[in-house]
Amino acid sequence: MSESFFFHSPVKVFVEKDPYEVLSDFLSDSCRIGVVSGKVAILKTGFKEFLLKSFPDKEFFFYDDISENPRINEVIKGGRFLRDSKVEKIIAFGGGSALDAGKACAIFATNNRPFYDLMADNNYERPIPLLAVPTTCGTGSEMNHYCIITDLEKVDKVNFNKPDLFPKYAMLWSEYLKSLDETLLLWTVYDAFSHAMEGYLSKRSNRFSDILAMESMRIILDNLKSYSNSKRMDLSKLQFASALSGAVILHTGTTILHALGYYLTNVHGIQHGLANALLIPRYLMMCEGKGVEKIDVIRNIEKELHFSIVDSIKDVLGDRVIKLLSGVDTEKMVDYALNKPNSLSTPFVVTKDYILRHFS
Amino acid sequence: MSESFFFHSPVKVFVEKDPYEVLSDFLSDSCRIGVVSGKVAILKTGFKEFLLKSFPDKEFFFYDDISENPRINEVIKGGRFLRDSKVEKIIAFGGGSALDAGKACAIFATNNRPFYDLMADNNYERPIPLLAVPTTCGTGSEMNHYCIITDLEKVDKVNFNKPDLFPKYAMLWSEYLKSLDETLLLWTVYDAFSHAMEGYLSKRSNRFSDILAMESMRIILDNLKSYSNSKRMDLSKLQFASALSGAVILHTGTTILHALGYYLTNVHGIQHGLANALLIPRYLMMCEGKGVEKIDVIRNIEKELHFSIVDSIKDVLGDRVIKLLSGVDTEKMVDYALNKPNSLSTPFVVTKDYILRHFS
Repeated sequence: MSESFFFHSPVKVFVEKDPYEVLSDFLSDSCRIGVVSGKVAILKTGFKEFLLKSFPDKEFFFYDDISENPRINEVIKGGRFLRDSKVEKIIAFGGGSALDAGKACAIFATNNRPFYDLMADNNYERPIPLLAVPTTCGTGSEMNHYCIITDLEKVDKVNFNKPDLFPKYAMLWSEYLKSLDETLLLWTVYDAFSHAMEGYLSKRSNRFSDILAMESMRIILDNLKSYSNSKRMDLSKLQFASALSGAVILHTGTTILHALGYYLTNVHGIQHGLANALLIPRYLMMCEGKGVEKIDVIRNIEKELHFSIVDSIKDVLGDRVIKLLSGVDTEKMVDYALNKPNSLSTPFVVTKDYILRHFS
Repeated sequence: MSESFFFHSPVKVFVEKDPYEVLSDFLSDSCRIGVVSGKVAILKTGFKEFLLKSFPDKEFFFYDDISENPRINEVIKGGRFLRDSKVEKIIAFGGGSALDAGKACAIFATNNRPFYDLMADNNYERPIPLLAVPTTCGTGSEMNHYCIITDLEKVDKVNFNKPDLFPKYAMLWSEYLKSLDETLLLWTVYDAFSHAMEGYLSKRSNRFSDILAMESMRIILDNLKSYSNSKRMDLSKLQFASALSGAVILHTGTTILHALGYYLTNVHGIQHGLANALLIPRYLMMCEGKGVEKIDVIRNIEKELHFSIVDSIKDVLGDRVIKLLSGVDTEKMVDYALNKPNSLSTPFVVTKDYILRHFS
C-alpha cells in the first residue's frame, strides 16, 4: 500500500432516486439523445418504453445491439452512428459490456479516428456527456473511465481509457435488476467481489480505496450468505457495493486474476463474472502462499460474517468449476496473463511456475 | 438514514505527493497566480518562499491577510484584488478560514456583485480554478463547496456555497502541519471529529458518507489515544481523516452542534474547533437521551480502541470547559442555533428546553 497517493470519485451517483427526475435533469437543454445498450435488457426492463413515453419532446437514437464483450468495430460503428445522429447526450444502459461500449462510442462520436490511433493520443475532442445505468451487480463501469473492448484479430481484451471518459451521472435503480437471470446475477456479483478483493490486495491500493473495498466485500459477502441460507439478496445494497468496487479499481486497477479471466472469456467464451468466480479461490491461495498480509483482513470479515467467499462459490458453482477448467490450456492462459499490464499490480512476484502450480 | 441518496467526491486529492509536481501540474498554462492565505502559516511553513523560488516564471499575487473567521468585506475585497490582478488560477493555503475565503474570493473575482445578491442567484460566472492546501487537521474545506463567512453586522456565520466552488485539486502535505501550535492542532482535530460524528448521526447521512465518517472517527480516536498516551500523533493520517470528514459534511451538512458553536465563536471569540470540542460531550448526551440508535456504532469504535472522545476532551481541556461556558448566555445561544438551517439535520426533534437542559 502506497503512503503517497491520489483519490477522487467524480461521478455523480444517484441511488434509488426516481429515474424520471434524474433523467430530466441530465437531459435538460438537449433534444437529440443517443442510447447505447444490448438488445434484451432495455426491452425486458421497460426502459426503452419508459424513455419514449416520458420524454415525448426528445428524439432518441438507439444503438441497441451491443454484444457481450463488445468489439472494436462495434464502438467505431456506434461512434459514427451517434455522430451522424448529432446526439447531444448519451445514455448507456446495461451490464459492463453496454456501459463500456457506451463510453467508447461517446468518444469515437467526437473523434473520427482509428481505434489504436485515438487510444495512443492524448490530444482529442471531448466525448459526448454520458449517463450510465447499470443493470447488473458487477461491472462498476459506471464509476470509472475504463472501456474493456475486445480485439478479435488479436484475440485480446484491451483497456481503452481517457481521463474524460467518466460518466457524468450514474443512476442506480435496483428495479432494473429484477429481470436479470439469477445465475447471471450471481456471476456479476462475483465480478464485483473480485474488483473489491483484487483492488484491496493490489500493490496500487491506498487508504481511500481500501475503505471502499472493505465495505464492498462486507456487503457482498453478507448478501451471498443470505443467498446461501434463503436464496434472498438485497439488490439495492449489492448494486451500491458494485459501484463502490468500480470506484476501487478506478484507483487500483485489477490484477492477474482479471488477466487470467480475460483468457477464459476470449478463448473459451466463459462469461466474465463466472471466469472470475472460477479464479477467486485459486487467487486467494496464491496470495496466502506468498504471505500477502492483507489477506488477514479479508479472513476477518469472513469470520465476522461466519461465511467465506470460497464456500459461496462452491455452493453456487459446485462441480462446474472443474468441468469448466478441464479443457483449458493453462500454460497458454498463464502466458497470456503474464503479458497483460494487470499482472504488474499483483501483490506478489508473479512467475509462470507459481501460477501454473495452482491449476494442476 | 436515507435509502435514496446521492454521492460523489469530485475533488482530486493528492496525499503526500511532492508539492512541486502537484503545483507544476495545476499551474501549467497559467502565468498569473493568486494566493489567498492568512498572514502567518504561509511564512512559517516556507510555502511563500517555495512558490517564488520554484516557479520563477510565474507572477504571484498574494492576498495574504485573511483573518480567522473571514468577513464579507474581506472576500469582496479579495475578489476585486484577484480580478484586478487578472489571475488565472488560485492557491488557497491555510486553515478553514483561508480555504473558505479563497473559494469565496475565487467566485467574487469573476462576479463583481454584492455578497447576498450573488449568494441568492444561480446565474453567475464560473469561479477561477482553485487548489486548496490545508494547514490544519480540521476544516475539510478542501473537499467541499462550502464557504463559512462571517457577517459582522448580523453577528452571524453564513454558509455561502455554489456547485462550482469545489477546489479542483486538494494537496495534503503533512509537513505543513508541523509548524502548527499543538493546542490549535488538537482543536482542529476535534473539529474534524465533530464533522465526522455529526455527519454520521445526521438525518441526511447515507451509506456512502457513513463509510467515510466511520473511518474518519476511527483514525482520529486512534490518534487522540496515542496523544493521550505518548503525546504523539500521525499528522498524515489525521490530515487524511480530516479530508474524509470534509467529504462527509459535503453530503450531510452539520447539525445543531455546529450552530451552537458558531454562537460561541461569533459572540465569545472561542476558536471554532475548541467550541466544537466543548459541545461534543453534551451533544452525545442529547443524542443518547433521545435514543439515537447510531450512537451505538460510535460507542463500539470507542470500545474497540479502549478510548473515548469524551475522555480525550477531558484530558486536553480539563477545567477549561466549565470556565469557557460560564459566561455564556445559553438561552441566547440556543435561540441562535435553532434559527440556523443546520439544526434541521439533527437526528432528534430539537426543542429549546431539551437543548438548554444540557447546559444547566
